[in-house]
Amino acid sequence: MDLKPTKPLSGFIELLPAQQRCFDYCANKMQNVLRVAGFSMLDLPAIERAEVLTDKDNWDEIETQMFLFQKGDTKMGLRYDGTVGLSRYVAGHLNNLVFPFRASQFSKRYRGERAQRGRYREFYQMDLDIMGINSLSTNYDAEIISVIGAALDSVIEFIGPNEVRVGSRPFWDALFDYLELSEKQKKEIFVLIDKKDKMGDEDFADGLKDFLNNPEKENIIKSVFSNGYESFVNKSEKLDAAIKELTDFMKVLDGMGVKNAIIDLSIARGLAYYTGLVFEFKLINHPELGTAAGGGRYADLAGKFSKTKIIGVGAAIGFSRIFASMLENNQIDLTRFANPIDVAVLVMGNENVSYASRVVNALRNVEIAAVAYLDTDKKFKNQIEYADKIGARFAAIVGETEVAKNMIALKNMKSGNQESLSLADAIKKIKAK
Amino acid sequence: MDLKPTKPLSGFIELLPAQQRCFDYCANKMQNVLRVAGFSMLDLPAIERAEVLTDKDNWDEIETQMFLFQKGDTKMGLRYDGTVGLSRYVAGHLNNLVFPFRASQFSKRYRGERAQRGRYREFYQMDLDIMGINSLSTNYDAEIISVIGAALDSVIEFIGPNEVRVGSRPFWDALFDYLELSEKQKKEIFVLIDKKDKMGDEDFADGLKDFLNNPEKENIIKSVFSNGYESFVNKSEKLDAAIKELTDFMKVLDGMGVKNAIIDLSIARGLAYYTGLVFEFKLINHPELGTAAGGGRYADLAGKFSKTKIIGVGAAIGFSRIFASMLENNQIDLTRFANPIDVAVLVMGNENVSYASRVVNALRNVEIAAVAYLDTDKKFKNQIEYADKIGARFAAIVGETEVAKNMIALKNMKSGNQESLSLADAIKKIKAK
Repeated sequence: MDLKPTKPLSGFIELLPAQQRCFDYCANKMQNVLRVAGFSMLDLPAIERAEVLTDKDNWDEIETQMFLFQKGDTKMGLRYDGTVGLSRYVAGHLNNLVFPFRASQFSKRYRGERAQRGRYREFYQMDLDIMGINSLSTNYDAEIISVIGAALDSVIEFIGPNEVRVGSRPFWDALFDYLELSEKQKKEIFVLIDKKDKMGDEDFADGLKDFLNNPEKENIIKSVFSNGYESFVNKSEKLDAAIKELTDFMKVLDGMGVKNAIIDLSIARGLAYYTGLVFEFKLINHPELGTAAGGGRYADLAGKFSKTKIIGVGAAIGFSRIFASMLENNQIDLTRFANPIDVAVLVMGNENVSYASRVVNALRNVEIAAVAYLDTDKKFKNQIEYADKIGARFAAIVGETEVAKNMIALKNMKSGNQESLSLADAIKKIKAK
Repeated sequence: MDLKPTKPLSGFIELLPAQQRCFDYCANKMQNVLRVAGFSMLDLPAIERAEVLTDKDNWDEIETQMFLFQKGDTKMGLRYDGTVGLSRYVAGHLNNLVFPFRASQFSKRYRGERAQRGRYREFYQMDLDIMGINSLSTNYDAEIISVIGAALDSVIEFIGPNEVRVGSRPFWDALFDYLELSEKQKKEIFVLIDKKDKMGDEDFADGLKDFLNNPEKENIIKSVFSNGYESFVNKSEKLDAAIKELTDFMKVLDGMGVKNAIIDLSIARGLAYYTGLVFEFKLINHPELGTAAGGGRYADLAGKFSKTKIIGVGAAIGFSRIFASMLENNQIDLTRFANPIDVAVLVMGNENVSYASRVVNALRNVEIAAVAYLDTDKKFKNQIEYADKIGARFAAIVGETEVAKNMIALKNMKSGNQESLSLADAIKKIKAK
C-alpha cells in the first residue's frame, strides 16, 4: 500500500510543539487584556446556514470562495469571519445580554479560495466588538482602538511596536456629494481608494481618469492624499461634520492614552459593512505582514436578523497572520518555549512504578511539570538520554535504593550534580530554579 | 425583507456569556492538569484530505456521515476525531518529536449525520495520547487513565466523582480462539458485545444464538458477564496471557493511586483502531451522559502514513458531551460566572472621558476588570442601571468634581456606600474584596 501524505493541505497551519506553546502564550496574554477590559468570550459555531453567510445566491461563485456543503435541503458553510455569527447571536439573545455589550471571539475562520502565498485557508482571528441598541458613542470606537493597542502591546516582546491609522467613511461620502459624483462613480472611486496602496500612484491616477474624466475632480481627490483633510474645511456642511467627527475622535484617542494614532484617509476597509470611522493597525517592525488588525463601525449590524437597530464597532486582529506566519518563518526566538518539562522521573525497574507515581503526582500537585519514563525495562543510559532530549531541568531517579530509603536521587541536568533528597527537599530545590 | 433565523443550526452549541465562562474555566482547569503532566498541546487543521479521514471510497455513504467538499481535484472534509490528524502529524514529524511523545488536542470535531437528541454535529473533545516508537509499556495506558482521572477531578465541583472500567481486546481474541469461532463470527459477536449495554440481556442472548447457534458456546460467552474472567484461567495460554496482562495492569493502576477502577469486559470500544486494553470513564452522578471519556491502545497508530511503527495509547474526553449539555440543561450553578466585572466607571460628561480612561487603564493594569460607560450623554440614572445590570461590584463615578479633586467617587453596589477616594485608595478597596 502506498503511504498517504503527511503534510497538511496547503493553506493550513500546523505548528511544532514549541511554536504552538508560543502561539498559545500570545493568545492567552492578549485574551487576558480583553477579559479585564470586560469583553465576554464567545465561541460560536464554525458552520452557519448559507443564507446567514451571504445574501447572494450565485452559488457557483460563492462555492469557489467558501467551504459549502448541503445536508438535506439545507445549504451551509464554514464562516469566513466572526461578524456574521456574532450579529445572528446578538439578535437572537437581545434579552439575555446587557448593552453596550462587549464580545470577543478567538476562533478559526475559513476561506475556500485556492491557497496563495501568505494566504491561509484556515486561520485564527481575534475579534472584539462593542454593540449598543439605537445609539453608541464614538468613544467606543476609541475604546476598541485603545484595547487592541493594549492587546498587541502585551506581546510587544515578540512583535514590536504598532501604529494605527484612522480613516473616515463619512468624509468620502461628503466629498463625493460635494463633487457631485454619480452613485456608480462613488462606488468605483471607493474601490479604487481601497486598492490605492497596492496599485501605486500612477495606476491610481489612471483609474480616476477612467471613472471621472474630469481633471479638476481628479486633482481634488488626489489632493486628499497629498494635503490631508485641511483644505476641505468650509466646503460643505457634510464635509465639516465629517472632519469634526474625525478630529474630535483623534482628541478622544489622545485622551485615552493612544499616542500612536494618525489620520490616514486612504484607509477604506473595502466596501462591506462599515459606515463610520475605520482604522488599521500595522506592526512597525513587520511591514511584510500588512494589516495586523482592522475594523470600524456599522450603523446596523444585525439588520437581516432583527428589527432592533444594533449599532456596532468592531475589529479583528489577524492572529494567524501575525503569529503563525512569524513562527513558521522562524522570526521568533523560541528558547523560552522549547523545554516545558521541569522533571523527568526515571524508573529503574517496574516494581518501582508505584513509588515513582507518588513522586510524579506530588510534583504535579505543586504545579511542577513532571513526566515519568515508564518503559522501565530500558537501561539508565536510555532513560537519562530521554531526560536530556526533552530538556528537563532535573532528572529524579527512582531505584531500589531510593525506595528503600524513601528518597529520590535528584540530578541537575545542567550541572550534572546529583544528590539524595527527601521528596519535600527535592520540591524545594526544584522550585528554587 | 424577511428576517433570517437567529438560532444556530440544529446540533450546534451556542452558550450565553456566563455559560461560556464556566465552559472555558473547566477547559483551562483540565488543560492545566495535562500541561503539568507533560502533554504538548497541539492545534491541528480541522480540515483533512478525504483520503486521510477514511480508507473507504463509498463516497455517497461517507458524505452522509461527514462534512465533505471538493476543491479542484481534492476531496476534503472536517475531522470527526482527533486521532486521524494526530497520526498524520506524528508520522510527518518523527524527527522533530521526542518519544514517548505526549500530545493533547482540545478541539472541535464534526459529524455530518442528521442531528439527534443529545448528539452534536460540532463538539469539543479533549484528547490525550502517548506514543512510542516500536515499544510502549502498558504503564503508559495506566498513566493515561490516571491523568484523565486527575483532569476530571480538577472540576469535581461541577461534575462530581467518576469511575473507570477497564476491558481487554486480547481477552476476547483469546476467548474467541478458544471457542474456535470463525473470523465472521468473531466480528459479529464483538459488535454484539459492544452494543450489549444498549440492547439488554435478552436481545444479547438472541443475538448470540443467531450468530453461534451453539448453546454451550453461548453460555460460555454469557458467563464472562456474570462470573468475570476468573473461570477462564488455565483454559489456554493466550487466555492466561490476556488475563495476566489485565490483572497486572489493575495492580499498576492501584499503585498509581487510581482507586476507582474496575475490570469490565463488556467495555469493547467499537471495532476501530484498538488492539489492547480499553477503558471508559463514567460520571457517577450523571449516568445520563453515558461515556464521559474513553480510549485504549493501538498497536500501529500511523501505519498508513509511515513505515515506522508508532504504538499509541490514547483517549478522548467528551468535553462538550459533559459540559455543554450540562450547561444547556442548567445543571451547573453559574452564580460564580455571572458577574465578571469588578468596576463600572460612570462618566458624567464627555469632557471627562480622558480622566475616566486613566482610571480604567490603571484598574486594568492591576488585573481589575473594568469597563467605562462611554455614552456620556446618558443620565446618571441610566449609567448606574448599567453598572447594576452587569453585576459590577463597584461603580466608580467620574464627574467635574472628581476630576477637579483628582479623586473618584467609589460606590459599593451591594451596600450602596459611596466615598470619595484617590485612585490608589480605590484600588486597595476594590482589591480587598
